[in-house]
Amino acid sequence: MKRFGIILFAGLWCALFAGLCCAQEAGDFQPATTNVWGAEYPRVDRTGRVQLRVKAPDATKVRVNFWSGPKVEMVKQADGFWTLTTPPLVPGLHYYNFVVDGADVSDTGSHAFFGGGKHASAVEVPEPGSTYYAIQDVPHGQVREIWYYSKVTGSWRHALVYLPPNYDTQTKMRYPVLYLQHGGGEDETGWIRQGRANFILDNLVAAGKCKPMIIVMAYGYARRAGQATPAVPGPPAGSPDRLKAMQEMTSAFEDDVTQALIPYIDKTFRTMPDRDHRAMAGLSMGGMQTFQITLNHLDLFSYIGGFSGAGGMLGDRKLDPKTDYHGAFADPAAFAKKVHLLWVGVGTVEPERMRAGIQRLHTSLLEAKIQHVFYESPGTDHEWQTWRRDLKDFAPRLFQ
Amino acid sequence: MKRFGIILFAGLWCALFAGLCCAQEAGDFQPATTNVWGAEYPRVDRTGRVQLRVKAPDATKVRVNFWSGPKVEMVKQADGFWTLTTPPLVPGLHYYNFVVDGADVSDTGSHAFFGGGKHASAVEVPEPGSTYYAIQDVPHGQVREIWYYSKVTGSWRHALVYLPPNYDTQTKMRYPVLYLQHGGGEDETGWIRQGRANFILDNLVAAGKCKPMIIVMAYGYARRAGQATPAVPGPPAGSPDRLKAMQEMTSAFEDDVTQALIPYIDKTFRTMPDRDHRAMAGLSMGGMQTFQITLNHLDLFSYIGGFSGAGGMLGDRKLDPKTDYHGAFADPAAFAKKVHLLWVGVGTVEPERMRAGIQRLHTSLLEAKIQHVFYESPGTDHEWQTWRRDLKDFAPRLFQ
Repeated sequence: MKRFGIILFAGLWCALFAGLCCAQEAGDFQPATTNVWGAEYPRVDRTGRVQLRVKAPDATKVRVNFWSGPKVEMVKQADGFWTLTTPPLVPGLHYYNFVVDGADVSDTGSHAFFGGGKHASAVEVPEPGSTYYAIQDVPHGQVREIWYYSKVTGSWRHALVYLPPNYDTQTKMRYPVLYLQHGGGEDETGWIRQGRANFILDNLVAAGKCKPMIIVMAYGYARRAGQATPAVPGPPAGSPDRLKAMQEMTSAFEDDVTQALIPYIDKTFRTMPDRDHRAMAGLSMGGMQTFQITLNHLDLFSYIGGFSGAGGMLGDRKLDPKTDYHGAFADPAAFAKKVHLLWVGVGTVEPERMRAGIQRLHTSLLEAKIQHVFYESPGTDHEWQTWRRDLKDFAPRLFQ
Repeated sequence: MKRFGIILFAGLWCALFAGLCCAQEAGDFQPATTNVWGAEYPRVDRTGRVQLRVKAPDATKVRVNFWSGPKVEMVKQADGFWTLTTPPLVPGLHYYNFVVDGADVSDTGSHAFFGGGKHASAVEVPEPGSTYYAIQDVPHGQVREIWYYSKVTGSWRHALVYLPPNYDTQTKMRYPVLYLQHGGGEDETGWIRQGRANFILDNLVAAGKCKPMIIVMAYGYARRAGQATPAVPGPPAGSPDRLKAMQEMTSAFEDDVTQALIPYIDKTFRTMPDRDHRAMAGLSMGGMQTFQITLNHLDLFSYIGGFSGAGGMLGDRKLDPKTDYHGAFADPAAFAKKVHLLWVGVGTVEPERMRAGIQRLHTSLLEAKIQHVFYESPGTDHEWQTWRRDLKDFAPRLFQ
């Protein structure tokens, strides 16, 4: 998720940078876990500092752009490489790119993570003591790629499906399903590659903290059959035109999910195909889509999660429980009876615009006496570390 | 696969380029099927010409590097974009990158395809009339991601597994297995993303031309537990040191396949777990690995395919059937009885070094009276179009 808002650690960055550039060879730097085979850079030390390197012998200006921070100039070395050591970054997965003489480019040393509408670079800064998203010696589920034909979009669509451990051996068992959506600029691979959702679930299930479940991760962009693909980039983030474009796309996606994807999943896997065993959640744009889709289809869903993006369709105004979402929030008692879980989360250092939107939704829901969970991830931004924690809190509350 | 050899269409390129740069806005250019959502470039016309565009407003020199051709200078436009229209390219998937002031960079408009040790760009030039690797309205298999722990490497390893259509519903059915390996610089995702192996198999099975089978695509790099990851880039291609490094890695990979992967697959999926129902094939480096692994383990494999890379361990010399591969080729009658298929293929316009190696192997096998199939893909290079055709010819010959 590209950050346009407040620059969070710019001050820290500037304060530390002058000192660090001299000490950059010290430390215990190791290749990042997000690197491709054999790539020595980027490297991370135990304090979370990141060393970056890119070869651009004929360039006059090279910068690194961490999407959650400012662009910082790199320093040219005699061998044609440009280098930089950052101050300590907060734990988690950080998208970044280089800017080589004005060209936005990826780091060939990094694996590719689909974000910002392209295959972006990212570096994983370990969170000390956190094992919940690590691959551990527990039974592992599998992730399947599926292709389904959608009459709504008039096209073959690709989705990923996580099946819990032992799905293949316990052949009489049926499972509840969580539909879990990526953010704007990302795609159906995000929750596995960036989010490590499969390992989070493996670990929760192994610890007995969470019901075994199927997770379906769909491609969150859709246009109706015959409709042209919208231009990229579209209208600016936060603008009314962007909201309108998003509403149109979400409407097509809503029909795709409810008319093509869910029937396909229920036909293909051993699901429990009813509303009591079907959840939906999503991050950022995916949270917005989740609210629209689930609240329009309470006959299909009974668990709802908005990760840093719920209620986004409201723009900058408060929720009106009587009219918004077809009045789904008008009657708190009826809502509580129908919806087993409404879950809303945000990171405490997300950009003001995003944090304020979720906070406003939370306050609106309180005022409307709608029972819900409000979760704040301490110290994390509009980044994957927030959403990994969201999933860790959200999944154990499902299907109990 | 990075081409260091003869430049194939350089002449054509130079001859046509002067004329084409003026006519580049004509034609019926469409965004490539390999583009990310909404990206208008690269674009391809029906003659196979490709239009490329990259934004680099402050660069002084930008080139495009098609890995099977020469680097060609792009032209700066007033809007800060650099553009180029190629002459018609042969059909298939072509890796490429931009070189921006000396920096090798990917095209943000292209999906990422792991090749050359990084997430590379590639453009698909359609082959008129070819539908065998297209997604069609036939039953589709699924591709699964699996993680298995290998004591050989002391690490969790990731592999992709294609399961044929109806694997989940025909729960009594057991299937033969093809182990199918990528080339050097590529990874376990290559046969699906670049090769479209799943669609090739779906289409062959639907047409009744091929037995339903499981395909396992492993990560072809391995180091033994405790051993350091080799430096990247390693010794130069074709050098004795490269061959030695490759042999060491292949030896670790061989143990991983035979001691960790095969037992895991046979435990996890409904396989027919015997040599008569187990095949292995690979492209380029993967072909070399296939020859080493299968011929060292004829107790495990009975079908062998080398796509543009069989026999590579021999370097520049002829096969000695009495001594090479532990004398597996010493007795033609015994070999024919034991090995149900030995298949060797190459594209007719591959670089001389590669073509000569396969041709020499073919001749050696003929002289040794070893029954085998030799397939030449007309007009294709050391690129994925050759290997897609290889798979299309190879798979129907398996498990008959």
